[in-house]
Amino acid sequence: MARRLSEAEGYALLAKYGIRVPKHEIPASRADAGAIAERIGYPVVLKVVSPDIVHKSDVGGVITGIKGRNEAENAYDAILASVAAAAPGAGIDGVIVEEELPQGLEFIVGGTTDPAFGRVIAVGAGGVLVELLGDTTFALAPVSGERIREMVRGLKAYPLVRGYRGSPPLDEEALVEAVLAASRLFTGEEIGEFDINPLILYEEGACAVDARFIAGETPEVPREERAPFTLPAPGGIAIVGASSDPAKIGYAILRNLLHFRGQVFPVNPKYARVIGVPAYPSVREIPGEVEMAVIAVPAPLVPGIVEECGERGIGLAVIVSAGFRETGDEGRRLEEEVIRAARAHGVRVLGPNCLGLMLPHLGINATFDPISPKPGHIGFLSQSGAVITTVADWSVQAGVGFSAVVSVGNQADLGFPDLLQAVAGDPATRAVILYVEEIRDGRRFYEAAREVTARLPVIAVKSGASERGKAAASSHTGSLAGSHAVYAAAFREAGVILAESLEEAFQVGELLASEGYPGGDRCVVISGAGGFAVLASDYAEKYGVSLPTLPDEICRDLDAFLPPLWNRANPMDIIGDGGAGRYAKVFDVMIEHQEAWDIAVVVTVPSAVLNPVEIAHEIVRFSKKTGKMVVPSLLGGESMAAAVRILKDNCLPNFPEIEDAFRAIGSALTIPGGKREKTPACDGEEEER
Amino acid sequence: MARRLSEAEGYALLAKYGIRVPKHEIPASRADAGAIAERIGYPVVLKVVSPDIVHKSDVGGVITGIKGRNEAENAYDAILASVAAAAPGAGIDGVIVEEELPQGLEFIVGGTTDPAFGRVIAVGAGGVLVELLGDTTFALAPVSGERIREMVRGLKAYPLVRGYRGSPPLDEEALVEAVLAASRLFTGEEIGEFDINPLILYEEGACAVDARFIAGETPEVPREERAPFTLPAPGGIAIVGASSDPAKIGYAILRNLLHFRGQVFPVNPKYARVIGVPAYPSVREIPGEVEMAVIAVPAPLVPGIVEECGERGIGLAVIVSAGFRETGDEGRRLEEEVIRAARAHGVRVLGPNCLGLMLPHLGINATFDPISPKPGHIGFLSQSGAVITTVADWSVQAGVGFSAVVSVGNQADLGFPDLLQAVAGDPATRAVILYVEEIRDGRRFYEAAREVTARLPVIAVKSGASERGKAAASSHTGSLAGSHAVYAAAFREAGVILAESLEEAFQVGELLASEGYPGGDRCVVISGAGGFAVLASDYAEKYGVSLPTLPDEICRDLDAFLPPLWNRANPMDIIGDGGAGRYAKVFDVMIEHQEAWDIAVVVTVPSAVLNPVEIAHEIVRFSKKTGKMVVPSLLGGESMAAAVRILKDNCLPNFPEIEDAFRAIGSALTIPGGKREKTPACDGEEEER
Repeated sequence: MARRLSEAEGYALLAKYGIRVPKHEIPASRADAGAIAERIGYPVVLKVVSPDIVHKSDVGGVITGIKGRNEAENAYDAILASVAAAAPGAGIDGVIVEEELPQGLEFIVGGTTDPAFGRVIAVGAGGVLVELLGDTTFALAPVSGERIREMVRGLKAYPLVRGYRGSPPLDEEALVEAVLAASRLFTGEEIGEFDINPLILYEEGACAVDARFIAGETPEVPREERAPFTLPAPGGIAIVGASSDPAKIGYAILRNLLHFRGQVFPVNPKYARVIGVPAYPSVREIPGEVEMAVIAVPAPLVPGIVEECGERGIGLAVIVSAGFRETGDEGRRLEEEVIRAARAHGVRVLGPNCLGLMLPHLGINATFDPISPKPGHIGFLSQSGAVITTVADWSVQAGVGFSAVVSVGNQADLGFPDLLQAVAGDPATRAVILYVEEIRDGRRFYEAAREVTARLPVIAVKSGASERGKAAASSHTGSLAGSHAVYAAAFREAGVILAESLEEAFQVGELLASEGYPGGDRCVVISGAGGFAVLASDYAEKYGVSLPTLPDEICRDLDAFLPPLWNRANPMDIIGDGGAGRYAKVFDVMIEHQEAWDIAVVVTVPSAVLNPVEIAHEIVRFSKKTGKMVVPSLLGGESMAAAVRILKDNCLPNFPEIEDAFRAIGSALTIPGGKREKTPACDGEEEER
Repeated sequence: MARRLSEAEGYALLAKYGIRVPKHEIPASRADAGAIAERIGYPVVLKVVSPDIVHKSDVGGVITGIKGRNEAENAYDAILASVAAAAPGAGIDGVIVEEELPQGLEFIVGGTTDPAFGRVIAVGAGGVLVELLGDTTFALAPVSGERIREMVRGLKAYPLVRGYRGSPPLDEEALVEAVLAASRLFTGEEIGEFDINPLILYEEGACAVDARFIAGETPEVPREERAPFTLPAPGGIAIVGASSDPAKIGYAILRNLLHFRGQVFPVNPKYARVIGVPAYPSVREIPGEVEMAVIAVPAPLVPGIVEECGERGIGLAVIVSAGFRETGDEGRRLEEEVIRAARAHGVRVLGPNCLGLMLPHLGINATFDPISPKPGHIGFLSQSGAVITTVADWSVQAGVGFSAVVSVGNQADLGFPDLLQAVAGDPATRAVILYVEEIRDGRRFYEAAREVTARLPVIAVKSGASERGKAAASSHTGSLAGSHAVYAAAFREAGVILAESLEEAFQVGELLASEGYPGGDRCVVISGAGGFAVLASDYAEKYGVSLPTLPDEICRDLDAFLPPLWNRANPMDIIGDGGAGRYAKVFDVMIEHQEAWDIAVVVTVPSAVLNPVEIAHEIVRFSKKTGKMVVPSLLGGESMAAAVRILKDNCLPNFPEIEDAFRAIGSALTIPGGKREKTPACDGEEEER
């Protein structure tokens, strides 16, 4: 088991990094305890020192409030006697005499080592607030002072730091400094896990009162330097295991690839043609240009085929076959063999055990999913094949198009980091959506994602939020961490939006792909119905979207043509008796005053006087005429279908539920520095390249 | 302004109702203060008594920790001097000497008088936890001990009551008793608003330390006893203001009513026929049976027409005309005139300023909304006409049908209470959905809703959650109340589910209309894809739905035919390579063991081997064969359309987003005693009666 540092070692380490600790000494005898107590000054606290005892109070190992020499000496004996009786087997290294600190606001500062993301720092409210508030935030170590300040200010207990109900403000800077020092300590020493519990914060300064350190190294993943991966644009594709039997996966893949405008080469030693297409006994025999092979043969044959691909100069093997790491040790060995063959022959591998790859702009559906989604600007990476078939099926009806759909499978070679960069590197991609179960190299993902989010919005759905406490709970922080909190922290720091469902992910992705990140958080709502204006206000509050007061100039300009009963407030109720023309005039005013807002939500309801097609065109014009985020929420059903189609053709998503619009805006605003780039609205249907 | 009770009066009132208060006395002099302090026993606290000073500490009006006679006498003088200097204008009634209580866990117990719902009791964590936890719950007064226990146990601070991290458990019963006593006091005395802040809870007992009472009566709404209102089933309908001009509302209403299978009588003194239908100069002249009039004429004409309706024996006037209370004082007077006329002539009034009424089973669309939703089993009451037109438009595409759609308008006569009872009384209604902005007679609504929810699910969307602090903030409780918290408390107690959006309301409503409330909270998930099984688990946790371990018998029975890799857990991953037949066999096992679960969520994804239509029929069979709640979640897009239609035809809603399924289940579970009644699945399309 990992070594636990003693009290004194822990205090020494904290002091080395400039974190204040109580005055303390370990007496050699009863009399020494008295002398030390005198030196430290009263009150003091005496605590047993033992590597074996976790809950010292429970065995009579702590006596507080000692105010005299005699009392200290008696406490020394009392603790030794009490602990010996209550914990007979425990090793006892003595008793520590410490300065007893006054009350203050308690925090927990800790660190843990995550298997994927490495060292992670945590800050949270301490004492009784720990579990009542559930108020611990995480960040990847090392962490900057700025980020720590952000973490501290995000705590639910932060009002207590700022001074609350007449209590004086506490020393926020001391807290930030202490966490920063703890982060330096964590990355500078051989520590695997630690808790400072509590760190007491005062009006001036902060002091660490109890600290547990567990030695341990960060498991360094060996970094291979490999050329960045780019999405293929093949002239020819080999399908190894192509079959004429409709029950076989190799049949479905070949059938799907018949729509590919390049060349398709079935590989099957048993036949000269497969469903009418000339076939080859192996990839070596393929005569034409071929840069990519889709492999759907029994797992044991795969390593040999990958080798042949390398010899033939095929750079990418998409291994659909299952029977690898996911099935146990034998499969894991086979998977390693595949990767050795691939590395040796310069082949990159997608999968194994994946659904494959779709590149709609090239007419490539290299999967066995019968649905080929339309070309578009969303890049989608998924760790579940079922999620891809579901999303593909849904996308057809929803009118959502893709630049690439990639099933990552076992991530034996190409993982989320490489594939995220590759998909983001495709010029058609305007936003990337990830469905993540497990990221195998968290730090590399973090770096790749940071690089990508500087150009494009990335939205992730991470399943497994309910799987908690995976990390060994040898410290408080470790038990709190759980992988989901660490993923959330890493995503946040990498600028990745964390969505709670695929629906939300696609809503946010489509909105950002079209409108870009808003330049600020000032939202205006233009509604043709009072009831929905009030609901919009409720949802804005729920999702943290600010609705500033309308400037007088805007009200004045609107007064010129709106009916006198309009509410002169934000959300605006422009009254339901006007048509698209009234909206158009409101848009003109908002365009004129576009310095006053960052986001506009336009709500319309079915009405005899409102032509849905006209309002859609007006919204498109509104979006094109401003650099701002315009969010259409045309409510209703089939009567809005033509209007929604017009929006989609111009890359604008519609939000048929107002709540979803605000949820999407709120999600976008969680990335405050989100790269602001609005895509010029596309005209008409997108075409295959 | 309402009178504020003095300290001593407040303490006397609390003591009268059996709530423990500190020993206290008001001395007549400096010397008397010392004598009283001796009598009470140390430590004591001295506080200024003044009706004008709210924050006593701020003016040096409180001295604590007094441990001797001399100290008490000095404090007496010090307080008087300090207050005189710091608050020169304030009236001072003396100084109170009180027993100083030991520390304990602080609560706030309060009461306020809501304009709609009357007296409301609040309990929440006190001290610094007040705003950190936002932990105050409300209930209508008088409140039962059982309900108080539920309120206390629902507090985020409740773990501290139960004993937390080694601290001893506190006297929960004493807290419940004190709140119960406060509730009795509130309803038994002439008190409009009060705060006990704090009520300190100990290991034994509880003590009120500071209390503010503001005198005030509950504004008693005079209760008119009127016959309960039932939905009309008219043989004939008059349209007063019927018009041949397509731009007029009176045209649209008449056109919509041409689908009515009874008789339609346009009333317009200017024409003999309106769009081909024989017209009458007034309702008096109508020859046939006529029980309902839709009125769409200028507001000033309405009172006279209501009078005529009464004379003609027309029992219901649906007043679509606007220009009443919503426009100001003149309109308000006109509205009162209408109601006087209606009462005098025995006419019930819907509106004014409403969209009208739809009774799809009778072919009645007595509104100007061109969309007539199909007949079905949802009753919908809305305070916004735009919400009705939106929902109606959406419902056609969503395949949702209605027993009644009612626009409540200004609620001048018929309000939510009457209309809720009327709609729930229609035998076609299986669930009622409300869109509420304001309920005018909260207590009557509460009673009506309690009566209805004993038979049927009622789901409400309440807009205006973001409008806070409407109540005068003369007490802490008053400022916290705000109308939304009170609505939420009243809905909850009346068994009404509070939904956050119309989408959620309809999802919950349709599910409960078909499947009834579940008999318990044990949910099983049957998924054909591992990724969605994990997401289901995340959503179950998010919405508080419990996923118990699968009993061994079920696993054993499933082992007989599921592939060996199935996960033997809940959510079940039954592996994606099976068709509807595999689901059918799983359903058979679950039917066999139906004592082990209460709710089953069935998740399917698009796949070559799964026939959507077959799985839909199997789910219908599954639902029919158990008395349990079966929740279909067929994921995908248009390829599921036929399957979703089959579910709908059998009254089962589909959840194309798993998260929504769990949100709906979680909402249903918020009403623990929810009336359990599963509707026998209807066969085929519902027809008009």
